[in-house]
Formats: sequence, structure tokens, C-alpha cells
Amino acid sequence: MVYFRLFSPSKFSKTIFSSKTLVKKHLSLSSSQTLNSYFHSSKILHTNSEMEASKKIDRAALDSVLTKRFFFVPSFSIYGGVAGLYDYGPIGSALQQNLINIWRQHFVVEEDMLEMDGAIITPAEVLKTSGHVDKFTDFMCNDSLTNEIFRADHLVEAILEERLESDQLARQLGDLTLQKNVTVKKQKGVKVHVKLEDQTVVEYSEILAQIDNYGKEKLHEIIIKHDIRNPATNNTVTPPVEFNLMFDSSIGPTGHLKGYLRPETAQSQFVNFSRLLEFNNQKMPFASAMVGKSFRNEISPRSGLLRVREFNMAEIEHYVDPENKSHPKFHEVADLSISLLPASTQQSGSTNITQITIGEAVSLKIIDNETLGYFIGRIYLFLVKVGIDKNRLRFRQHMSNEMAHYACDCWDAEIHSSYGWIECVGCADRSAFDLTVHSKKTKEKLCVRENLETPRVYDALVPNTNKKVFGPKFKQSAKKIQEKLESLTQLELEEFKTSLESKGSFNLELDGQSFELTKELLTIDMQTFKENIREYTPNVIEPSFGIGRILYSLIEHSYYTRPGDELRAVFSFNPLIAPFKVLVLPLSNNASFSSYLTDIARSLRKMGVPARVDDAASASIGRRYARNDELGIPFAITVDFQTVKDQTITLRERDSTNQIRGSQEEIIALVVKLVNGNTSWSDVLQTHKTIEQVSE
Amino acid sequence: MVYFRLFSPSKFSKTIFSSKTLVKKHLSLSSSQTLNSYFHSSKILHTNSEMEASKKIDRAALDSVLTKRFFFVPSFSIYGGVAGLYDYGPIGSALQQNLINIWRQHFVVEEDMLEMDGAIITPAEVLKTSGHVDKFTDFMCNDSLTNEIFRADHLVEAILEERLESDQLARQLGDLTLQKNVTVKKQKGVKVHVKLEDQTVVEYSEILAQIDNYGKEKLHEIIIKHDIRNPATNNTVTPPVEFNLMFDSSIGPTGHLKGYLRPETAQSQFVNFSRLLEFNNQKMPFASAMVGKSFRNEISPRSGLLRVREFNMAEIEHYVDPENKSHPKFHEVADLSISLLPASTQQSGSTNITQITIGEAVSLKIIDNETLGYFIGRIYLFLVKVGIDKNRLRFRQHMSNEMAHYACDCWDAEIHSSYGWIECVGCADRSAFDLTVHSKKTKEKLCVRENLETPRVYDALVPNTNKKVFGPKFKQSAKKIQEKLESLTQLELEEFKTSLESKGSFNLELDGQSFELTKELLTIDMQTFKENIREYTPNVIEPSFGIGRILYSLIEHSYYTRPGDELRAVFSFNPLIAPFKVLVLPLSNNASFSSYLTDIARSLRKMGVPARVDDAASASIGRRYARNDELGIPFAITVDFQTVKDQTITLRERDSTNQIRGSQEEIIALVVKLVNGNTSWSDVLQTHKTIEQVSE
Repeated sequence: MVYFRLFSPSKFSKTIFSSKTLVKKHLSLSSSQTLNSYFHSSKILHTNSEMEASKKIDRAALDSVLTKRFFFVPSFSIYGGVAGLYDYGPIGSALQQNLINIWRQHFVVEEDMLEMDGAIITPAEVLKTSGHVDKFTDFMCNDSLTNEIFRADHLVEAILEERLESDQLARQLGDLTLQKNVTVKKQKGVKVHVKLEDQTVVEYSEILAQIDNYGKEKLHEIIIKHDIRNPATNNTVTPPVEFNLMFDSSIGPTGHLKGYLRPETAQSQFVNFSRLLEFNNQKMPFASAMVGKSFRNEISPRSGLLRVREFNMAEIEHYVDPENKSHPKFHEVADLSISLLPASTQQSGSTNITQITIGEAVSLKIIDNETLGYFIGRIYLFLVKVGIDKNRLRFRQHMSNEMAHYACDCWDAEIHSSYGWIECVGCADRSAFDLTVHSKKTKEKLCVRENLETPRVYDALVPNTNKKVFGPKFKQSAKKIQEKLESLTQLELEEFKTSLESKGSFNLELDGQSFELTKELLTIDMQTFKENIREYTPNVIEPSFGIGRILYSLIEHSYYTRPGDELRAVFSFNPLIAPFKVLVLPLSNNASFSSYLTDIARSLRKMGVPARVDDAASASIGRRYARNDELGIPFAITVDFQTVKDQTITLRERDSTNQIRGSQEEIIALVVKLVNGNTSWSDVLQTHKTIEQVSE
Repeated sequence: MVYFRLFSPSKFSKTIFSSKTLVKKHLSLSSSQTLNSYFHSSKILHTNSEMEASKKIDRAALDSVLTKRFFFVPSFSIYGGVAGLYDYGPIGSALQQNLINIWRQHFVVEEDMLEMDGAIITPAEVLKTSGHVDKFTDFMCNDSLTNEIFRADHLVEAILEERLESDQLARQLGDLTLQKNVTVKKQKGVKVHVKLEDQTVVEYSEILAQIDNYGKEKLHEIIIKHDIRNPATNNTVTPPVEFNLMFDSSIGPTGHLKGYLRPETAQSQFVNFSRLLEFNNQKMPFASAMVGKSFRNEISPRSGLLRVREFNMAEIEHYVDPENKSHPKFHEVADLSISLLPASTQQSGSTNITQITIGEAVSLKIIDNETLGYFIGRIYLFLVKVGIDKNRLRFRQHMSNEMAHYACDCWDAEIHSSYGWIECVGCADRSAFDLTVHSKKTKEKLCVRENLETPRVYDALVPNTNKKVFGPKFKQSAKKIQEKLESLTQLELEEFKTSLESKGSFNLELDGQSFELTKELLTIDMQTFKENIREYTPNVIEPSFGIGRILYSLIEHSYYTRPGDELRAVFSFNPLIAPFKVLVLPLSNNASFSSYLTDIARSLRKMGVPARVDDAASASIGRRYARNDELGIPFAITVDFQTVKDQTITLRERDSTNQIRGSQEEIIALVVKLVNGNTSWSDVLQTHKTIEQVSE
């Protein structure tokens, strides 16, 4: 089944981390729409076009090659492994590193962001302020006899979806057997399809559509009403309870200082805001950025790299004047045409894409402001650059009930894979929430002081007390009366001023007491103020990238098999992202080839071009090409008998399998240009004749 | 005081992590030598030359600039901070990232290593096997009234060293005052120097020299005997107890699966050995590598970045045939002359450096083998490349009592800073220890199967039992007798064969029983064996890099002030490591300059050259040069009035402050070449005339 709300626990609407389920996306419809759509789709959670795309991938075959070629594997697998923890092997870790390096160049360097590297271990107080200690939870329940643990919403979903699937098959079977009724109970060992009442189908679908919104009481109610049990034992389950998703530990030897492994990198950036602003010479707007591991103690991790307990993320916090969210480079992305799924579309029960330029989307207010639009554009360009298929990329807007209360607007970059549409990047306007809460808690100012070119001049009423008589008159109450006076609004002051002038006094109510203030005690006067400095808390626009998710999507989008050789995978990684850029191999195990191999590989590596040598003599050259296509190596240099004669070598391009021949120097120079993006294979073919495939 | 054993808890001799204290380094002498050297040095822990070097740095000034310019700061400082946790700001994090990137190119790419990225959260069982759960501890004790916690060995050291220093000053004072005796007790509020008995000086020095070797009982004995108390309260302290330095947490919702934050990256590599070998097409030798955060819950973190609770490390595990530790590229480092401090020198009570080539050191067996020598050479080249002063770099060999029992040889790259000599890289031959323990625990083979080109042919005696009579005769004992027979050595078999042939039988003792084995039951025959495959567990040579320590040392080695401007720091980072490569600034705040600035910065950034613009109009150009010298930016491009006239700009080099002028295109191309190491400033001066410093 296809279900994701990967980045967030049920009740914690944090930016990227509150994407709704696919169920929600497809079933947030009226009941009749729901039932209609349900009866017309082959599997409830997919539209047909999504089905087609995901069908292309044989995920079992893909998973097998990813494990076999050590892209990534469960961590500590010789010890039995741990759910939700993965080790990246040479290919996975190089893909990840290249992804991060391209990200760094695309965002940090090109946009002149201030990168930081903050601590992972975070004192509880910081995460209490940010809301994580109280709200970063999922609900869990136990099998009442075996104590097996379930994530409550996942359990409800799994059971209801199984029932719906069973019903759908029963209905199909019913059609075939001319409405002959299908057995209504599950028999031991035999899979029996159970038809549901139409009204039950609607009810189940509505529960699935809203499951993210349910608290523990509502989940419990559903569990009872619909008799949700542990499918393995048929035992009932206990009422759901909160489970905080942060890993905790204690810092130092006393055991008294509680800490957590950070669930995101953002807080480190917020608490350093003043230093960052200072580093930026007090200039606004600007952005900080951070890449690193974050941790979430998922109740039941699943879906490979898509829901894990430890993951790399890259987060940008762009600080902007709340009164001016324009962006100086907006024009550079304004004409970019992207696929949007606005909130309004989803609320009308559709998932139809709006293909629109960013410029139009901002001017139509579909996207809230220029800065948000600019980042959506940059995210799009980044994802396409690393190799994400732009036809399987969309930006979905959060609906109002998905967003955190403080957020103005939020868009997820969702990438389609065999798991459905997955949120891989979130891009939210978080308003001034984070800086405000930390500032309030710590009493440290986290704000911007802007020198106003034209000072702000205004008049206002001010209470001026006569100290000589005021203090002696009110004694110990004088201070709080003074404070109360200073907190009065202009409207109140105006009223009191009138009263003072007409009656010579007014009454001030304070803590249930009434104090008479006479014109001997104070006057209320209009004064002129001039402000040269404007102080404000910046708003934060936060693009937040799940590196592992982008990585996995990229792997799926790059995966194919050659006709006639379906058992072998090929990964079409572009030269920028490919772990090894060049394969160096001899035609055969002839001894005269080996010094060439060493030479070529070394000179490539010296120039920073990762090269892999495959001189395992036992395998044919065809087999060696094929097994390195499985590592996604874009180019192959082959040393053959002609090399020994005239020092020429061949260069093969992975996807076309075309080869050209040239001198060692020429080919190496060409490869460096190809790898650095200074030329393309089609350009190379303009000036070089392809040759016959070399063979033994 | 100067004392380091930074990477390891007291009793855990893990490679890099068991460097001994400076005290040890300087005082592992005989008593008379100790006293002698003690009386002749101005501060007991420094040789004079070290003193000179460290004196150059005003550490308070350095620390202040590092904080002010946000190189790194205590984490969560607005919440009061947490000891041993640091946040790296833009400069610190870029330095760190560049250091890691250079490391990756130097080791992973150039040496074709298999990089991995493994999980930080590690199940307890893995770290139980590796020894960390039981032995990765330090000793702590408490103030018996206030409960304040101390690291026991640190407390002993601090107190004894304070007494020694006090004694030394008393003796100097004594000299001055013609041996007039100095007050012998500490008076309230007045610092009084206390002269010790000569014998006490020797005893204290010997304790300090061996403090790493002491267990908790011995530490307790010292605490009692020498009346070690909490200096702040003068209270006694409790007996030392073990404190495990790993942060623990629990994985998943049950609370039953205990995990730790990894204390090193090595274990992830070892447990994946078979996959790595497979990835390398079963070819040996090869190396895996990993960069990432590790965690140690230090009892009392101190010395800034040098002893922290969370740190980046980069570890290489090079797997090698125990019977052949030669290295094919050894000749490339053989002529490199490096500073060695061999174990034998230290044991003779000296810290004199041996300046020697790596080739000689290996051939003289000072360094155990070629592979170890090769890595020492590569480490040296790496450190010098990033900017470590080669005159403040030495390789110190572990003495036999410092090394883990399984290690063959171990060298630390130590870098000198104002904190003394600090181990920054360890390079150990760990033999087959790690793979063996994990293999034994998990029953998974972690070994190499080598196809022998010439099969190994040999004769051996084999017991052949006559199944028909053997089983019925011994019944339930038959199996264990059979096993016992198969476990006999050739010598035992030979003896039994003789006995069988002469007496017709022999007696086999087994579990206290004696079994008579007659020639009807078995024969012992000579058979010929032929082996085509050799199976062995590789040895591991492990270079392990403390990124934060190298970073800090590099910062100290790069720090200087200009004569006449001692309040301003300059960091002489080379272009490879410098966070920003180019500063772009206008001569003044004339409006006509700004489009040039934007243009220049953007084209540099597009080419991957991090550039910082400083157009804060309020500061003079001199001040802006100076404040960016504090960020270690090697080059500065200035836009001035002449730029507007003829599109030329100036290029300034940070250390010489020389400037040249050229067209925008020429200067930018030159900068890119300078930054990529394709030319140097002195080359540039060959072809360009320096100009007068531009001024407003």
C-alpha cells in the first residue's frame, strides 16, 4: 500500500514534516466523490497515471541490486540489523556526498548563504521551547496479550485498507460470478474476500482521508468501533498513548542534564541568529544553512530509505523583512514553468496539476510571495540538475489544516517513485515563530535593528506623573499604577485626558481596586516622537531537504535495464552525480595492459576524477562493462592491443554504449571536460567517429 | 598546565585513542633523570623550544577573535551553553568542510578507497563485542560533601602539578633569598610557595608520568596517600569509580533495545567487511574509509575544540595480508624526511627528534612495515598540504605499555600548539583483532579466500577410524573421541602411530577417562594434501584523524598579527583551505561601483569560488581589508574610480598586501587559477607589476 507522512509525527506540523498522506491527497473528497473514485480505480490509492509510472519499476529487482552492489544495506546486518538504520556503501555514500556538494554549490555558494555546523546533542530546554518535547509525538498501542507495539494510525490504516482491498476484489469477483455472494468471513489459511456495505466503504475512506488529524481519543474510538485488532494474533489492542519521537540521552556524568538527538538542524541556526546577523554585517535579508544528521525514533520504520531513524538533511533558514518579501533575483526564476498542486485544487477533491510559471503563480497569489517563489524555483533547478525526472516532480501546497498555525504558506516538492508521491523538500514561510519563542524564553534579543533613512516621526499621548506628589500619595502601589499608566492604549489615554480636562480626575481600575488620579498627580500630553531605528523580528522562509529521500528517488529515476539483458541493472547517473566517473579496464588479462591501466587511473584520480579499475581477468569485457553499468559509471576507458601499438585508447559512453578512440592524452582531457560539464557526449560525437565495440 | 590524552579514556587502548600524556612524554625517566630535568626546565612540562613556539600565541586574544568572528562558539550559548559542545559558524564550518574535502581527494580518491557512511546509533551488542561497553571508561570521583564531580586522574594531576610548580617557584625564590626557607603552608587568600622534599618531587613526577596506567584502586591509594582534595572546598573526595564515556539511548518504542552513539566510525566498517571485499572484486589489499560525527560523554570537557563531546573524525581501515605488508607505492614516500620520536628514545628519557626518511625508518625497523610507513608519509603530506607547519609536526611512536595488546605498532601524528603537543592523527597496525572478535561473535566469516596460484601440497598424518566397529564400541562417547582424534597435533599422532604399530594400541585421555584405541578401531596414515585456497583474516592498518584537532592546530599555525596593528588578527589560510577565497569590495560607497561588485561576485560564485562582498559604506577600505584578513580571505578584488573608466580592477594578496591591476576578465581568470592551485602569487608577480595601495 502507498502511504506517506514521512517527515512528521502525527501532531507536529513542522514545515516539511507535515506532509499529508497520499490517502489524504487522493481521498479528501466528499463521500460520494470518494465512493465514485474508489469504484473506478484499480487500487484505491493511485490515480491511473501514477500507477503506470510506478509499474515501470520492478522494486524487488531494484532492491536486490541495491543490496548486492552495496548502495545501502541495513546497518549492523551481521548482528541481525536494526530497523530504520542504514549503512551506505561506496556507491550510496558517494551519491550522497555528490548530492550534498551540488546542493552546497547551488545554494550556499551561489546564494552566498552562511553555512553552520551545529551540535547534534541538544539540551532538553531548547527543544522544550521549540515545541518538540511536548508535541513531537506519534501514538502507539500494544497487543493486549503479546505486548507487540504498533503505531496506532498505521495499524488502523493497514486494517481498513486491507478490508477495502478485500471488498474491492469481492466486488470484482461478484461481477464475474453474476453477483453470487462471496463468503463473508476469513477462513483459516484461505484468503477470502469480504464485501462491505457501501456506507462502510465511505466511512473507511473518510477515516483514511483524515487519519492525520485524529488525536488519541478519536483513534481509540475508531479502534473500538471498527474492531481493529492485531492481525497476527487477532488480539485486541490497548488505547493509544503518545510516544515522543526524539532519542534521549543524558549529558555529562551527573545524569541530570537531559539531552536529545536533534530531530532537525533548524534550532541550531535559530539560536545563533544574532551571531549570523553580525557576521553578515547586520545586512538583511540573508540565509543560514546547515547539512547534517538528524534523528527520529520511529515506532515502526519502513519503506527503505524513506522512513528511517537517522537521516541526513539540509536546511536553509532565509531571514526576511516581514514587510518586504520581494527577492532581487526573482526575475531569474519567474519564467520557469513548474507543476503545482495548489491547496484550492486539493480542497475541491482533485489532484490535477497546474502547469504554470513561477512569475504567474506569484502574481496570482497562488504562491504567497516572491521569496517563497524564488526558493521553489531554485529547488526545482537543483532537483533537475542532480537527475530527478521533471515529469515526476510537483510542488504541492499544504492545505490550511496541514499547516502549523504560525506558517503563512508551505509547499512540498514531491517526487514520484514506486512508493507514490513522496515529499522530499519542504518550503515553508514560518513567519517569526521560532525566533520569537527562543527570544522570549532566553530574554536574548533575536531581532534586526534597521537604521531608517527617513526617521519615523509621529505624535502620541503620554502620561506624565508629578513625582513629588504621586509617590507619597500611592506609596507601595505607586509602581504598579505607573506601569498600568504606561501600558494604556492611545484610545484609553484620550478618554482619560478628556476626563482629566473636564472633571479634573479619572478613575483607574487595577487588581480590583479603583484609584482616583487627579490633575495634580499627572497630565496627559501629546508629544512628538522620532525613531531612527526600526526593530523587528525577521520572518523565516525555510527550504528543508531530505537527502536520503532525494537520493532514493534519484536512484529509481535512473534505474533501467537494457532490452535483452533484463537481469542487469543500469543506472543513468549524470557525470555530476555519478560516484565513479570513469571505468578503466583492459580488454583481457594480457600482461602488457597493466601499466596503462595504472597510469590512466592515477592521472584521472590526481585530477580529482574518481576512477574504478576492473581488471578481474576471469570476466569477459562485456560482462565487466555490464557489471559496472550497475554502478552507474558514465564513461569507460578500455586498453586493448592497439593501445600497446599506438597508445590510443577507447572511450565508451554508458547509455548509448557508443565508443570512440583517441590518444591517451586526448581521451583523458575529454573525460575531464565531460565530467566537469564542459562538454557533452553529443558534442563529442560531432568531432569523433564512433568505432565498433572492442571485443576479445 | 599542559596535559593531553585527548582521544581515549584511561583504560581503553584504542589506536589513536591511547596517546599518552605530555607528562609521560617528558617525564618517563629514571628518578634521577626526572629530578635533573625538572630542576633545569623553567616549566616542567615543556622543553625550551616548545615554550618558545607556544609563547608566540596570545591565546586569550586568539580565543576572542575566534568567538567574535564566529569561527566556533559554545553550542546553545543563549541557553547558557553546554560544556564540550560547539557550533561552527560560517568560517569554522567551511574550514572543516574544506579539510574534509581535501582529505577525501587525498585519501579516498587518490588511493581508491571505498568510502562508507554508517549509522551513528549502534546497538549495544556491537560495542560489547568491540570492548567499548566494558572498557571505554574513565574514573570519576565526587567531593564528599558537595558531590561535585571530578575526573579522578585529572584531579590528581592538577593537584600534584600545582604542588610541583609551587615548589619550583619556592626553590627559585629560595635561590634569590640565599636559601632562606619559604613558608611551607598555604595561607588564606595569599599564594604561598611550598618547597617539597626532593624525594616527594621524584614521587610526584613518577605518578604524573604513569597516571594513564593506574586503575581505580591505585588512583584511590594516591588520593589517600597524598591527601588529594577538591581544591575549591578542601573537602575529601570519594573513591574513584568507572564512568562509561558512551552516550546511551534506546532504539524503538519498547525501551528494550539499548543503543549507543558511536564513539568512533571504525566498527561500521568492520561489520561490513565482507560487502566491502565483494565490492572490491575480492582483491586485496584495499581500504575502506568513513567521515562523520562520533561522541564521547567526557566527564569534564576542556581545552576548547581539543576535548569535546561531539566531534568529526575521518577513519581509514586498510586491510592487508598479515604475511605481506609491503606497499606498491611505498617508493613515493620513501625519500620523505620526517620528524620521528621513536619509543626507544622516549624510554631512554629523551624527547629528541630523529629526522629521518621514511625509507630508512622502515629499513631500520623503527617503523614496523612498508604499509604503515606509506600511511605515515601520506598523513604527513596531507597535514602539510592543508597548512600545518611541518616544523611543529612530529610522529610519536607508542611505547609498548601504551599500545593495545593486539596492536603491532602505532604512531601518532602530533601537532604542536599553545596547548603543547597534541595527537591529531593516529596510525596503528591493529592486527586481526577487530575482524576476529566480530566474526567470532556473529559466526559470520570476515576473512579473505585467496586462490593460490601454486597449490600448497603437503603430507600429514590422519586418523582413519573403522566406522563399523568404532561406533558400536564407544556408543555415545564415539563422537567426542572422534573429535578429540581430529584435534590431535602431528606430534601426538606420530607418537600414537608408533604405539599402534609397536603395541597394537594406545590410550586416549578424555575428560578424565581413558579410552583404549586398538589397531582394529583405527589406523593412522600419512596422506598428501593439496590446497588451492588460502583463507586468512586480514590485518588492519588504521589511520584515524581528529578533524577538530587538526582544524584548531591549523588555526593556531595560521594566526598572526601585523606589526603596528596587533589588535587585528590575520589568518594565513592557503587558498585551498580558506573559507572565502576572494573578498570583493568597493573603494567607497559611490553608487557607480555596485553593479561591478554584483557582477564580479556572481561570476566567481558560479565558478564555485566562494566570494564575500564587503560594501558596508561606513567603514574605510583599510578597515574593511583588515576585518576580512581576520577571516583569512587570501585575495581581495577592489572596484574603484578607475574601474568605472576602464573596467580594470585591482587584486590584493592578503599576506604581502601587494596589489596588481588588470582587466576584470583577466583578474577573475587569475583568481580562479590561484584558487585552484594552478598558479601562485609569486608567479603572478613575475608577470604583473605591483601598484600603490588604492586609497579613498
